[in-house]
Amino acid sequence: MKARVFVTLKSGVLDPQGAAIGSALDGMGFDGVESVRQGKVFEIEMTETDRDAAQERLDAMCRRLLANTVIEDYSVELG
Amino acid sequence: MKARVFVTLKSGVLDPQGAAIGSALDGMGFDGVESVRQGKVFEIEMTETDRDAAQERLDAMCRRLLANTVIEDYSVELG
Repeated sequence: MKARVFVTLKSGVLDPQGAAIGSALDGMGFDGVESVRQGKVFEIEMTETDRDAAQERLDAMCRRLLANTVIEDYSVELG
Repeated sequence: MKARVFVTLKSGVLDPQGAAIGSALDGMGFDGVESVRQGKVFEIEMTETDRDAAQERLDAMCRRLLANTVIEDYSVELG
């Protein structure tokens, strides 16, 4: 089973990298960009075929390694 | 309008970071992980309300700044 895991900064957390990209876009003439926030995506292939079990295992991976839940949110999309 | 832009390495390009995460997961007891590839996601808020115009502008942003199209693929999801 394929899955995508998104890890993004929580909304209250400053994202200087996203802000830099936003102002770079603005400087290149892309007006109308209100905000940019950068996150990570992990494309994971697993042998697990049961959706519930896969979801549970991916949640555990996020909590233990992929996301820092103090400052980051994560979401899982099963393929 | 909100959009999400995904930037991932092309399939032929080595991803040592993803491989390291895969073996870390394996070492933590998460068996059954076949592969991990890491990419970037950009959450962009734009004032543009026309979907076609937004898509076109986001394509241009990807080609000019967000993605290195020699080694990376990108995809755009409008919210």
